[in-house]
Amino acid sequence: MTVTERLLKDTESIWAEYHQHPFVQGIADGTLDKEKFKYYMIQDYLYLLDYTKVFAIGVAKAKDMEFMKRFANSTHAILDGEMDIHRSYMARLGITPEEAEHTKQALDNLSYTSYMLRVAYEEGQAEVAASILSCALSYEAIARQIVAEHPEADKHPFYGEWVSGYVSDSYHEENESLVVLVDRLAADYNEAQLAHLSEIFTACSRYEKAFWDMAWEMRK
Amino acid sequence: MTVTERLLKDTESIWAEYHQHPFVQGIADGTLDKEKFKYYMIQDYLYLLDYTKVFAIGVAKAKDMEFMKRFANSTHAILDGEMDIHRSYMARLGITPEEAEHTKQALDNLSYTSYMLRVAYEEGQAEVAASILSCALSYEAIARQIVAEHPEADKHPFYGEWVSGYVSDSYHEENESLVVLVDRLAADYNEAQLAHLSEIFTACSRYEKAFWDMAWEMRK
Amino acid sequence: MTVTERLLKDTESIWAEYHQHPFVQGIADGTLDKEKFKYYMIQDYLYLLDYTKVFAIGVAKAKDMEFMKRFANSTHAILDGEMDIHRSYMARLGITPEEAEHTKQALDNLSYTSYMLRVAYEEGQAEVAASILSCALSYEAIARQIVAEHPEADKHPFYGEWVSGYVSDSYHEENESLVVLVDRLAADYNEAQLAHLSEIFTACSRYEKAFWDMAWEMRK
Amino acid sequence: MTVTERLLKDTESIWAEYHQHPFVQGIADGTLDKEKFKYYMIQDYLYLLDYTKVFAIGVAKAKDMEFMKRFANSTHAILDGEMDIHRSYMARLGITPEEAEHTKQALDNLSYTSYMLRVAYEEGQAEVAASILSCALSYEAIARQIVAEHPEADKHPFYGEWVSGYVSDSYHEENESLVVLVDRLAADYNEAQLAHLSEIFTACSRYEKAFWDMAWEMRK
Repeated sequence: MTVTERLLKDTESIWAEYHQHPFVQGIADGTLDKEKFKYYMIQDYLYLLDYTKVFAIGVAKAKDMEFMKRFANSTHAILDGEMDIHRSYMARLGITPEEAEHTKQALDNLSYTSYMLRVAYEEGQAEVAASILSCALSYEAIARQIVAEHPEADKHPFYGEWVSGYVSDSYHEENESLVVLVDRLAADYNEAQLAHLSEIFTACSRYEKAFWDMAWEMRK
Repeated sequence: MTVTERLLKDTESIWAEYHQHPFVQGIADGTLDKEKFKYYMIQDYLYLLDYTKVFAIGVAKAKDMEFMKRFANSTHAILDGEMDIHRSYMARLGITPEEAEHTKQALDNLSYTSYMLRVAYEEGQAEVAASILSCALSYEAIARQIVAEHPEADKHPFYGEWVSGYVSDSYHEENESLVVLVDRLAADYNEAQLAHLSEIFTACSRYEKAFWDMAWEMRK
Repeated sequence: MTVTERLLKDTESIWAEYHQHPFVQGIADGTLDKEKFKYYMIQDYLYLLDYTKVFAIGVAKAKDMEFMKRFANSTHAILDGEMDIHRSYMARLGITPEEAEHTKQALDNLSYTSYMLRVAYEEGQAEVAASILSCALSYEAIARQIVAEHPEADKHPFYGEWVSGYVSDSYHEENESLVVLVDRLAADYNEAQLAHLSEIFTACSRYEKAFWDMAWEMRK
Repeated sequence: MTVTERLLKDTESIWAEYHQHPFVQGIADGTLDKEKFKYYMIQDYLYLLDYTKVFAIGVAKAKDMEFMKRFANSTHAILDGEMDIHRSYMARLGITPEEAEHTKQALDNLSYTSYMLRVAYEEGQAEVAASILSCALSYEAIARQIVAEHPEADKHPFYGEWVSGYVSDSYHEENESLVVLVDRLAADYNEAQLAHLSEIFTACSRYEKAFWDMAWEMRK
């Protein structure tokens, strides 16, 4: 069992809840209230700004050149690439980036990103990568399951762009390279170190679940 | 209006909820389920370990000698003094410090301390102090209101020690010195800087509320 | 006087020494011992890896979106662009990146990057930018003066590539955007804050001088 | 061989230079120019303020309760105890703490503390402890050798207080507890991790040497 396989196994029951979540189901069958999606999109935009900062601190913590280059590239690519989905949706929903940036981060969102940033400041490169893995991989898993159950979901006039972004080959390849990196960096970790990685990955997986709840309830 | 007065005014409605909280009311009239208190005590013990770390990072961020000495003293005093209330209760409840230290931090607890630690790593000395102020002052305010409404509460055979700790003169003096420090450090802050301090204090005040909810529901 | 103009004025006498430095003069007239340049090139390669980390922590400290994007871009661009000059020279000198990465950083080099990284961890975005400015601007100033005094220096078969890189329009434009950013971020700084920026910029300017001395003497 | 024994072996030749240093010899035989000592005392005072910050970040990085308590205690004890030697000398030399605090840190001093602070922000608890060990242990070793060679050195009317502080039992016990801690925390380190600890300890040992040079030459 690889390190990432263990992390996924330890969080199986939490991940199962993502797929059944009404917010995710609403994207899958296209019935999600657009107001909820708009709320989510702005919060996710704010989330990604902090997520970028986690990658950036990862660069500073890097002891491995490949890790350093990978994280430096992501620091740049998220702001100038991945957030394009958000900017595209925000344009369609009539929100400017400035409006999004001036929206308050909801408390659940703030909790999640604060936890990742704290891990980034306190820990080493493999731990920083583990904190990122939960978001990165769960979005792909969610989108793939949506398409498996609703084969037309990536062609939906509104939600299709979201779905197709996270089932894309390019998104998958980025995730794969991250998985390979984590597996290599933690390859000779002892049980205490692996348990700690799992603790980080589990906390982030729980925060992912709370993020969907927050979006569904449009929490302040 | 001093800086601290403004912070308190901005969070009035959140603080009002502390006093009416069933957990706090249970301490006040002595009816609180001891299992709930035991849960709370262990989580608060874990909270204080992280709280100590916030003071410690404050020392590293200090540009002001008085701030540095005050925070260095607290870093030491919390571990070797303030946590005595906890160790005393834990002894009465049959919990060893080791057991407490091996308990998992509940997610609401982790969110709160991660936020404070993130502020500590990201910001300057006045902001670190503002993140601490909410916990420090709200405990005194809660205990004082308990005694105002239940004059015998600090003599209750079980909960009295908790109440009397937070209405003590020594606790008040520590808080006073912290207030004086924050007011001085932020004395020439402009409106944007004050609004940012208030944002930090408000987030922590909301996390305090969530902490009481967590304790009442004994959340995992 | 802009903020950057003040920083440059406060360090005039230190900067004057760069131009007269035997190492710089050796690049200018093409007489520099290649062994010294090889030593320098490897140390500068190691320096840039840490320099990239300073930009990365800057991203994490960003409160300003333009700053964040600029620094995220640099985090990536230094590793994948600016270091091309180094990789090109290293290829010509028969050094692989792996050899360079396994060379020990000389103590003067370590002192300089440790200071910048410390500033990055301890301070805010404008201060991080000020710590970077000294390296960024002095290399352009040095290369321009070289070309002013030795108009053929950028065509020298060996040292020409170094000179032409730092007198290039693209390098100038990057520097210009950094200057505009610092001037804007510190626009409403009071005298104490400006003096602190100057202190950072001055320390870095002194470390630049020490770096040339280190290279000239090929210090361990 | 314990971890600390290895660190000391790896730096033997650097440590030998401390004992022969004219500054140290001047304290030993009482001939050191008081102006040099005054310069040193102020720089060492400034050094200790940053040194305290290293301990403080250590608290924040702690995963081990004993480490956390030990470092929290030192954070407080250095400011309120160890610096008493400095305050006593400063009083005798007619320097107020405020004057000392407003003196500029010399560049060698700044390099040393920046390196330790960088290690503290970037690394884990054992590495932070290793960065502190060089200063802590070398002062005891120096003072002990002084007394071995000049048995009356700790009774010298001026320099005796310095010597007797660092040969005292209390200073020795503090060092011993730090050694025990480092040896325990790094007990199951692999060779790469030990080599990295040694790299940190060696860099600090070299900075110690540079500090004596700086003091002797009263560098700016």
